[in-house]
Amino acid sequence: MSVTNVVIVGLGLIGGSVALDLKRRGFAAHIVGVDSNEGHCAQALELGLVDEILPLERALNNAELVILAIPVNAIAGILPGILDKIPEKCSITDMGSTKQSICLAAASHPKRGQYVASHPMAGTENSGPGAALYDLFNGKVAVICDEAASAPLHLQRVESMYKVLGMRLLRMGSAEHDLHAAYVSHLSHITSFVLANTVLAKEQNANTIFDLAGGGFESTVRLAKSSPEMWAPIFEQNRENIIHALESYIEHFQKFHRTLVQQASDETRGLMADANRIRRVLTKMDDKTSKKGPAR
Amino acid sequence: MSVTNVVIVGLGLIGGSVALDLKRRGFAAHIVGVDSNEGHCAQALELGLVDEILPLERALNNAELVILAIPVNAIAGILPGILDKIPEKCSITDMGSTKQSICLAAASHPKRGQYVASHPMAGTENSGPGAALYDLFNGKVAVICDEAASAPLHLQRVESMYKVLGMRLLRMGSAEHDLHAAYVSHLSHITSFVLANTVLAKEQNANTIFDLAGGGFESTVRLAKSSPEMWAPIFEQNRENIIHALESYIEHFQKFHRTLVQQASDETRGLMADANRIRRVLTKMDDKTSKKGPAR
Repeated sequence: MSVTNVVIVGLGLIGGSVALDLKRRGFAAHIVGVDSNEGHCAQALELGLVDEILPLERALNNAELVILAIPVNAIAGILPGILDKIPEKCSITDMGSTKQSICLAAASHPKRGQYVASHPMAGTENSGPGAALYDLFNGKVAVICDEAASAPLHLQRVESMYKVLGMRLLRMGSAEHDLHAAYVSHLSHITSFVLANTVLAKEQNANTIFDLAGGGFESTVRLAKSSPEMWAPIFEQNRENIIHALESYIEHFQKFHRTLVQQASDETRGLMADANRIRRVLTKMDDKTSKKGPAR
Repeated sequence: MSVTNVVIVGLGLIGGSVALDLKRRGFAAHIVGVDSNEGHCAQALELGLVDEILPLERALNNAELVILAIPVNAIAGILPGILDKIPEKCSITDMGSTKQSICLAAASHPKRGQYVASHPMAGTENSGPGAALYDLFNGKVAVICDEAASAPLHLQRVESMYKVLGMRLLRMGSAEHDLHAAYVSHLSHITSFVLANTVLAKEQNANTIFDLAGGGFESTVRLAKSSPEMWAPIFEQNRENIIHALESYIEHFQKFHRTLVQQASDETRGLMADANRIRRVLTKMDDKTSKKGPAR
């Protein structure tokens, strides 16, 4: 399956990377880019991410597939209006990191069936068209949410697109998605932001951080470079789950701290041994990634 | 400068990686390995990390340079006895992640001048001889501590070794080293251990973690795979600095949590923008690594 006219709204890391692979892998014959940032539009054209830039309304006229790759508050805001305007056979999906609020925004829309709620679990800490990468999604998982609310044609088209990107497909409810995303993705970003803030507050001399960052700091703090414009709306939309995740993290952190204060070395070792179990999970991931198993 | 007989005590990730590069880069003519783990000895020979395996006392007889790459409590325990036994012209260094306790263990030894306290700021989350890598140290920083306590010949020999490994040299007091290491290295490991524990406690199904780990989790949790046997002694020896670092982290974390609870979105954004300043520090690092500037 391929699509003649794909419209990508939002030409940053995610939208730009989708464009690169959909074109190269022959899924999209023509890609129209839409972005409220004129500099990003010019850069996306220059980098060859899209074939042309159009204003949103004109772009929608001939669209067969619309992809929203903008911050989650913007997705929730714009989705009903886009559903109003798209042609009857056009599919629309979004790539936001929260799903409940966005699904709610479209829930009562008469054209809800044309919308497929999704979240490709891939990214980097960089943003903007210049951050777009080939193969960003390859071997990773795309979550499709609340699939019963989407019409089969549209579900099939969006799933085809993700398969072309090399992704494994996973289906779950939007509430379940948001809960898991809070722990496995959103919390990681907050621990990194806080690590950066702690170290920057202590180390007045940037050279010291730079010199010593080889000792594990760099990878752990990588996500602290992430865009506040993208992440603040995610934290707002998934606020309750994230607050629970943060509170659970604080409890585990204080437990670790207590073993050091009490010089309970066996307990410190026990907590580290518990944490080591993550190796099995991540090794499993390496296995599956390299095997590139069939989509589920 | 090169050395005919190098003795490496501890044939894990660090000792094994040092061996690989010292041999390949022509610094060491003959490398003797010492390890209390017989399986590691056999594996180190099989992988060609060392030329021969000897018991510690025999290995020391002809040593010109002894490198201790074992957990920091073992270094502090063994260092005075090794100083007793090594030949007069032999240099000894250690690669432990704490420096004050180790320097204290050797402080009053009549042969203290033969010891150079050092810490190469490089590693991975893996351990054992099979984890050894070429170029692990290349472009990273080696910290030399309390250099006034080391005799010039020995200081020069150890610094030459680190230059051969491709490292930039940095000198600082052992107390200063331990303070910075608590924030820039040891804290990162604890935030990763705690992240793993939080997510493993919540997600009973390992598949869910595996499926969603593309969303930033994997890099942030990487250090949670680190060895408790190596890290528990580091936490003990640098306990006070680490407790301060943990308490500062908890404060920053609670501040972030509070902005979400209070829906103070501007403040959340402000904390993320503060954290983004780490990008400049890490970019600077990329620049310097790629330039491979002269050692300081």
